[in-house]
Amino acid sequence: MKPVGTSPRIAVDAMGGDEGLAVMLAGVARARHQYEGMRFLLVGDEAQIKAGLEKHPNLSAASEIVHAPETVAGTEKPSQAIRRAKVTSMGLAIHAVKVGDAGAAVSSGNTGALMAMAKVALRTMPGIDRPALAALLPSLGENDFVMLDLGANTECDTQNLIQFAVMGAAYARTALELNRPRVALLNIGTEDLKGTDEIRDAATMLREATYLPMDFRGFIEGDRLSRGEVDVIVCDGFSGNIALKTAEGTARFVGDLLKRAFTSSLRSKIGFLISRPATELLKHHLDPNNHNGAVFLGLNGLVVKSHGSANEIGVANAIGVAAKMVRDDLTRRITDDLANFKAHVAPEALKA
Amino acid sequence: MKPVGTSPRIAVDAMGGDEGLAVMLAGVARARHQYEGMRFLLVGDEAQIKAGLEKHPNLSAASEIVHAPETVAGTEKPSQAIRRAKVTSMGLAIHAVKVGDAGAAVSSGNTGALMAMAKVALRTMPGIDRPALAALLPSLGENDFVMLDLGANTECDTQNLIQFAVMGAAYARTALELNRPRVALLNIGTEDLKGTDEIRDAATMLREATYLPMDFRGFIEGDRLSRGEVDVIVCDGFSGNIALKTAEGTARFVGDLLKRAFTSSLRSKIGFLISRPATELLKHHLDPNNHNGAVFLGLNGLVVKSHGSANEIGVANAIGVAAKMVRDDLTRRITDDLANFKAHVAPEALKA
Repeated sequence: MKPVGTSPRIAVDAMGGDEGLAVMLAGVARARHQYEGMRFLLVGDEAQIKAGLEKHPNLSAASEIVHAPETVAGTEKPSQAIRRAKVTSMGLAIHAVKVGDAGAAVSSGNTGALMAMAKVALRTMPGIDRPALAALLPSLGENDFVMLDLGANTECDTQNLIQFAVMGAAYARTALELNRPRVALLNIGTEDLKGTDEIRDAATMLREATYLPMDFRGFIEGDRLSRGEVDVIVCDGFSGNIALKTAEGTARFVGDLLKRAFTSSLRSKIGFLISRPATELLKHHLDPNNHNGAVFLGLNGLVVKSHGSANEIGVANAIGVAAKMVRDDLTRRITDDLANFKAHVAPEALKA
Repeated sequence: MKPVGTSPRIAVDAMGGDEGLAVMLAGVARARHQYEGMRFLLVGDEAQIKAGLEKHPNLSAASEIVHAPETVAGTEKPSQAIRRAKVTSMGLAIHAVKVGDAGAAVSSGNTGALMAMAKVALRTMPGIDRPALAALLPSLGENDFVMLDLGANTECDTQNLIQFAVMGAAYARTALELNRPRVALLNIGTEDLKGTDEIRDAATMLREATYLPMDFRGFIEGDRLSRGEVDVIVCDGFSGNIALKTAEGTARFVGDLLKRAFTSSLRSKIGFLISRPATELLKHHLDPNNHNGAVFLGLNGLVVKSHGSANEIGVANAIGVAAKMVRDDLTRRITDDLANFKAHVAPEALKA
């Protein structure tokens, strides 16, 4: 068996996602143009992929097809999907990472199923108790920020939070190309006494771990997530999911109110039409396709979740995220940082 | 001692808040016009209040001044403020509720101090394990919605969540004038298996409590908070604080992006000026002054927190919230609903 994650190829679940095969292939073709020398394993129905590739002659030369007779449905339960791992495009894309045929897998399919299958097939990394779901989100700063965990772990202890910080910082170094990302823990206040014991203890240990390649900034509150003040925000999966979805919902809420306001009179409609380029710019900044590519961190192999409704730009971005992680050997980075942390910390403290 | 909360007077901490005495008095005067027959205890520096009242001759007739030599600072620690309860305007406003001189207290001052002082002076209601902080938030629906807890309790068990639901529903019946408010628990998914044990168990018990004056709707996710689908959203104080602040931060973030977009070119600036009435409408809808008045529920007495930066409209709204609670005898409503719940549920279940 080849070592995990060393192949420069990206395995793409060509059948997953709401937009279908054509959009996935268009995204792969786009990524091929953006990132030099990339090669792909296209996993799915062979006949359909072959037919789809006719539109992308350049892609054929860079791709190999892996036939998968079945597809994981969007509504399928993770437990069901796991049983069909050997016959589904999602399962076989992950399998390609496991056996070293690909350096990372990308899928726009069912998140729960992808996560469960990846966990079973790739297993958790040594030194990591629980993998986490991390995403790139838009900010007012110069770069996006990384947030994790976004729902993989409902409750987290101190060690989980520290491991998320280490993994999130490694991911930010790769995905955002930062040397020393600024890391903060999500909390309900910035004073030392705020929050749960788990969060306070994690802060104490991270504050002392100055040898790690991150700049630990303490606590951050929900109203400052997008201010561009930090590059990585760490939290348990429950709060992370609530924060992420509340942010999405609020952005939509404000957008809906704006639409309502702009269509409330002829005058507003005219104003809106004139300033359309401005609102398009806003749309572009908030478009999830421009921040696509959530990652399962902490597994023995790289798996990227692309939005279910990602368009070809979104798919290409998710593939780009995967390619950077393979290039930088993210799994090794995380292993090294964790080993470094453990070498500095008394073993009792790790049990806390 | 007169019975708690039966006086129709509202005690106003005239010195609290960032905007100073003049704004507080203007808010009180405005409330006096909006709600017939209201009477006030104005608590603070007597000389300053007397001077301030010269601008509001009608208010003098409806008010009594309670002299307080000191003020709680915005940065003061709750433990410090508690020690000065007998000499501060905030402490004496709460004291007026305790001894029955006022039906409710309203303050724009330091939240932590207000909460701590109220808890010490008024004590938790029988049947309530922990008081909660509830606020009215804007939605796309016909009315605002109530959300609690927003930060009073970092961790919550099943009974806490059920008590919050009962208190939140009673508050919605009063503040929003609804007969049977729709109540949901904040969660990271809507399926029965999602979330923590505490949330799932609370949902099971609330689903069975069909005799309560609420329409329990199960779980709601962060992206649907403002859709107008429910009237009361219940959660632990950690998630509630994260959700509230993330919503505030995201609204500001989108606003900042919009501003940036609208000022990016002359054309956009012109469009913006033309559609200004529309964006003003949006601003109005999101202005916290129009949703002012967070409430500490679960104490033997009513205490309303007005935003620190509330203007006179905001202060008047917070006083209006207090007046409605006094009118509807909210404390009794909560007591009755809880008694009803306990009469229906086996005592073992309440220990769960």
